[in-house]
Amino acid sequence: MRTVLMTGFDPFGGESINPSWEVVKQLEGMHIDGCRVVTRQLPCVFGEALSVLNAAIDELDPTLVIAVGQAGGRVDVTVERVGINVDDARIADNIGQQPVDVAIVADGPAAWFSTLPIKAMVAALREAGVPASVSQTAGTFVCNHVMYGLLHKLADKPGAKGGFIHIPYLPEQAAAHPGAPSMAAQTVKQALEIAIAVGLRQTMDIKATGGATH
Amino acid sequence: MRTVLMTGFDPFGGESINPSWEVVKQLEGMHIDGCRVVTRQLPCVFGEALSVLNAAIDELDPTLVIAVGQAGGRVDVTVERVGINVDDARIADNIGQQPVDVAIVADGPAAWFSTLPIKAMVAALREAGVPASVSQTAGTFVCNHVMYGLLHKLADKPGAKGGFIHIPYLPEQAAAHPGAPSMAAQTVKQALEIAIAVGLRQTMDIKATGGATH
Amino acid sequence: MRTVLMTGFDPFGGESINPSWEVVKQLEGMHIDGCRVVTRQLPCVFGEALSVLNAAIDELDPTLVIAVGQAGGRVDVTVERVGINVDDARIADNIGQQPVDVAIVADGPAAWFSTLPIKAMVAALREAGVPASVSQTAGTFVCNHVMYGLLHKLADKPGAKGGFIHIPYLPEQAAAHPGAPSMAAQTVKQALEIAIAVGLRQTMDIKATGGATH
Amino acid sequence: MRTVLMTGFDPFGGESINPSWEVVKQLEGMHIDGCRVVTRQLPCVFGEALSVLNAAIDELDPTLVIAVGQAGGRVDVTVERVGINVDDARIADNIGQQPVDVAIVADGPAAWFSTLPIKAMVAALREAGVPASVSQTAGTFVCNHVMYGLLHKLADKPGAKGGFIHIPYLPEQAAAHPGAPSMAAQTVKQALEIAIAVGLRQTMDIKATGGATH
Repeated sequence: MRTVLMTGFDPFGGESINPSWEVVKQLEGMHIDGCRVVTRQLPCVFGEALSVLNAAIDELDPTLVIAVGQAGGRVDVTVERVGINVDDARIADNIGQQPVDVAIVADGPAAWFSTLPIKAMVAALREAGVPASVSQTAGTFVCNHVMYGLLHKLADKPGAKGGFIHIPYLPEQAAAHPGAPSMAAQTVKQALEIAIAVGLRQTMDIKATGGATH
Repeated sequence: MRTVLMTGFDPFGGESINPSWEVVKQLEGMHIDGCRVVTRQLPCVFGEALSVLNAAIDELDPTLVIAVGQAGGRVDVTVERVGINVDDARIADNIGQQPVDVAIVADGPAAWFSTLPIKAMVAALREAGVPASVSQTAGTFVCNHVMYGLLHKLADKPGAKGGFIHIPYLPEQAAAHPGAPSMAAQTVKQALEIAIAVGLRQTMDIKATGGATH
Repeated sequence: MRTVLMTGFDPFGGESINPSWEVVKQLEGMHIDGCRVVTRQLPCVFGEALSVLNAAIDELDPTLVIAVGQAGGRVDVTVERVGINVDDARIADNIGQQPVDVAIVADGPAAWFSTLPIKAMVAALREAGVPASVSQTAGTFVCNHVMYGLLHKLADKPGAKGGFIHIPYLPEQAAAHPGAPSMAAQTVKQALEIAIAVGLRQTMDIKATGGATH
Repeated sequence: MRTVLMTGFDPFGGESINPSWEVVKQLEGMHIDGCRVVTRQLPCVFGEALSVLNAAIDELDPTLVIAVGQAGGRVDVTVERVGINVDDARIADNIGQQPVDVAIVADGPAAWFSTLPIKAMVAALREAGVPASVSQTAGTFVCNHVMYGLLHKLADKPGAKGGFIHIPYLPEQAAAHPGAPSMAAQTVKQALEIAIAVGLRQTMDIKATGGATH
């Protein structure tokens, strides 16, 4: 049976929960399109997050890997297009590291594009009534670090696809951040199930604009 | 048995649903703190909305009236502080009326403050994990029209309290408006139940800041 | 010779300058449409701000009074529509006062509408290439306090018009607040000159929408 | 004498001016730090923009190249970190082309990082009172196309540095887009002069965070 690996993160930046793990853990053991979903929680720590992720990939040999992270302040589910080869931490990670302009992989390419069908995912999410869009940047913190590292790892595994999805705060987090948008856990769970199904079925992405003028 | 009157609106502005009515109608017949909830749908029409509302108040003699409206673009549940005596329509209402700088009540006061315990409501909502805030403006469209008209009507009924709550788009609406925040119907329903309970129990508002510097 | 009274504020909220005074002071002694411009700096202090303002009005007997204040975070010149009879301070004023839900004038009306031709001002500003809009709320801090108090005072002086204009941060302020919009002092100065000219010439406001749906 | 090449764009997206060219053309012939500034206007056209740019580089052999573009909706001067190898046009370019997910350089790397001292530029701009920040995405339209193409071209010229700077609308543009932030031409001109000076003097970038958590 094929395996889908879904990851969420530890809380960071003063939050007591991370919506990515709160929702991802609910997917553990599900079966979608004949595949088994396995979940892992990644520490919000440069380096260590990739060690845990890479070990899981080696152990599980997944067909599809979607790393999920919190994007506090974003309004919708954002499917990331690209991870770039740089760590530039505006805040410290969970063990106090704060790299500035350091390459993730010393001799790696400048960027890796998601190998997920990102346009098809956004189209399917909107079709299902879930606010979603393509994002042109995953930032330069641990989320981008994991996205880049994941795609670098999968570059050697032609049978596996992977990428990154950012999600908004949960309502209970936004209640403590006046002005911040949020999305219910139930909506996010629905979104991730759709993303998995599309990621498994859609071998080629669809031709649909998801660009930004800037 | 005391009655709580909750109102939602018809869809407007090109939407096929209005989240206020989608959620308010789910409250019909509920009992909260020994009160019966009655719901009414108001047309998004200057004048007519108030006729329907006033008739319902005359018929039901409610203890508490909360009018609910859609605020597409807002991130949270906003409890309105004040309704002002002016209609200034940026878009036409549902029968094509577009008044500009017309008083709602010709010889009425410039404004009516909500008689709901707005600070207590916001505090209770946040405590329950629902993003919420006090809003200093209900706009100048049919929502403000209804808020002002409601409070003008209730000024003669010292035993009744009333006010207005704005809610975000539902996710299925925001899916068609990239960049717009949303809130799940379930979260909004929870919010309105809390607002009713607080509105019934809290005879005086709490002392808590809900202000804005501008 | 008729007099126009323009006021700006002391810095507040941790800023070392207040753009309203930085620009208003540049108007001192100008002649616009045969009127002399007199400027005053108001302390960002509940009560005291109105004492200084009222004394200036008594002394100068102005034809037109425009109070100007900083709205950090707003993108354009906003001509305020209405001042409401409540102080609700999210932050302390410059002498540490932080009133919550206190009436500005104990037995005053709930609100006063600006007597400036606010739509004509916005139209003229945009025509001149200055980003501008009508604002439906001046907040609940010292700016609203001054706007309400000013209009309450002018209610006894049928020959005088008055109101409030909010302006964005200056670029040098926004440079210290990443993400905050700004407007150059020169653009704001041009805006205030236009506002004065329109305020003097336009006895009736124009019929143009400046409303908000919420 | 060393040459600095500055480019701005044709108007696009329904605008009658493009702030990038409005300001860049004012720099023509200036001397900064002993270098001569030469300016060129690029068509907002995929492919053609790079032809014009590459011809100018071949002709002028510049030490420093900064392409400047309009980012309507952004609040500050944004120094771009990275250009990615994809065209994904949300709107058509000036000759009606609307590529979706097409590589800019068929066998090019996934991305090129700016070779400008982007952190030093942002620090110097803020120091001078100009709102500025590092941007993690130049979008996927003609601006990113030019940034990527420029850096691909300069990869063969180790003596030359280059990158991209996005600027907000001018006030006269924002006056027609209520809600949009803007920046005065004079402020943008000052910003570009600072960027040139820093680009010429600063051989290594400074160590300063300019990252984003997402």
